[in-house]
Amino acid sequence: MPRFAFLVEYDGTPFHGWQRQAGGQPSVQAALEAALARIDPANPLIQGAGRTDSGVHASGQVAHADLSRDWDPYRLAGALNAHLRPAPVAVLQCAPVADDFHARFSAIERRYRYRILCRHAPPVLAGRQVWHIRHPLDMAAMQTAAQHLVGKHDFTTFRSTFCQAQSPVKTLDEITLHETDAPGGTEIRTTLRARSFLHNQVRSIIGTLERVGTGVLTSDDVAKALAARDRTACGPVAPPPGLGLTHVRYPVDPFEH
Amino acid sequence: MPRFAFLVEYDGTPFHGWQRQAGGQPSVQAALEAALARIDPANPLIQGAGRTDSGVHASGQVAHADLSRDWDPYRLAGALNAHLRPAPVAVLQCAPVADDFHARFSAIERRYRYRILCRHAPPVLAGRQVWHIRHPLDMAAMQTAAQHLVGKHDFTTFRSTFCQAQSPVKTLDEITLHETDAPGGTEIRTTLRARSFLHNQVRSIIGTLERVGTGVLTSDDVAKALAARDRTACGPVAPPPGLGLTHVRYPVDPFEH
Repeated sequence: MPRFAFLVEYDGTPFHGWQRQAGGQPSVQAALEAALARIDPANPLIQGAGRTDSGVHASGQVAHADLSRDWDPYRLAGALNAHLRPAPVAVLQCAPVADDFHARFSAIERRYRYRILCRHAPPVLAGRQVWHIRHPLDMAAMQTAAQHLVGKHDFTTFRSTFCQAQSPVKTLDEITLHETDAPGGTEIRTTLRARSFLHNQVRSIIGTLERVGTGVLTSDDVAKALAARDRTACGPVAPPPGLGLTHVRYPVDPFEH
Repeated sequence: MPRFAFLVEYDGTPFHGWQRQAGGQPSVQAALEAALARIDPANPLIQGAGRTDSGVHASGQVAHADLSRDWDPYRLAGALNAHLRPAPVAVLQCAPVADDFHARFSAIERRYRYRILCRHAPPVLAGRQVWHIRHPLDMAAMQTAAQHLVGKHDFTTFRSTFCQAQSPVKTLDEITLHETDAPGGTEIRTTLRARSFLHNQVRSIIGTLERVGTGVLTSDDVAKALAARDRTACGPVAPPPGLGLTHVRYPVDPFEH
């Protein structure tokens, strides 16, 4: 059974997240498995690196599956994309990988980006891929607050109560905010990088930083909220459309040729 | 009758272009006029700086109208956006202007950008805003060819046969190609700048440069096509979704405060 890795892009808007749903609601995993089933009689199962939530996008999701025969990677991607249409899911690359490669467990880093569009007018061009905020945000305060979260911490405050991870301790390697001009306002793009994230961790962090940018919380409040290890100390969870999984890193990049 | 200028963003996908249609098909101009009619009993007419084609976007269109009473610019934008919903048109800014300001005739420069996404997989995140090309393009050849078009020329070759401009002579001040990595491939973003453009000029130029990037035409062929002043010497017209009007310049920026 040759194992293949897939580099996957999707618009999360119409999906109930990455993960196959017991109730049969549309998911990215189910869409990919249905496309695979059309070309492989063994109906292979797909494993993904990150279980993105409902409405969250990806330009760099990675998944793997065991196929019943060998494929030219380029033709495999083409066949899958043909069967995925018109679902907004695309296989950007396929690559043969070793039998011990696991999209989720072999990953050594995930990178997410979160986009906030600050302006009064509604976002008619980028609407499905930003969090629209009508007031200006204090970037400097947000940047200072964000630095409290870098490093190894107990992230209980920034973790969904539904999170199934055994430990709330994670190491956040990077959180970088970048502000650019956008038509009629500004866009704040935040990059977060860690070996792995807790459920809702990124959106909990962004929602809390937004409260700092608005002036409701101070940078010190964020340090205290982290130290409290208390979910109720967290700001509101930022909405899904601004979030995207952009990169998953492995000891050896399966897609590098 | 106080005159106001409007900075407008829109997703051109559902519209038959900027211009009001005799047959009543949806247009950006008609959508804006309908919103204005809800707040002003005089039913003001809107004049736009650039008549973008069906499916072409804008993040920096400028328009003007004469209202029957004065408005706070910020409240005017909010009222228009409320009435525009759910059409994908947003008024980013409003500004009072002098009676002799004309969105079209006072403009001294228009800027367009055209996005090409080069990769095998379909564009599921940027689909409505790029031209998707499945083969790689030779950027160096396209850049060399583009420079033949900079300056004052008779652009008959790159002009729609339906173009109503009196003269085919225009001065193209800039055409800059910029290549960046995109998930699964590359994106080529071209910026074009001129006092004004002929009908279909940008998309005719881009379609011809794509032929150069593919290797079907040489850079010299583009110089010859320009010199021929013959519409049949033009490459195919590039599709609308990649195109966006990003900026209109005036002697004094009406939106600068």
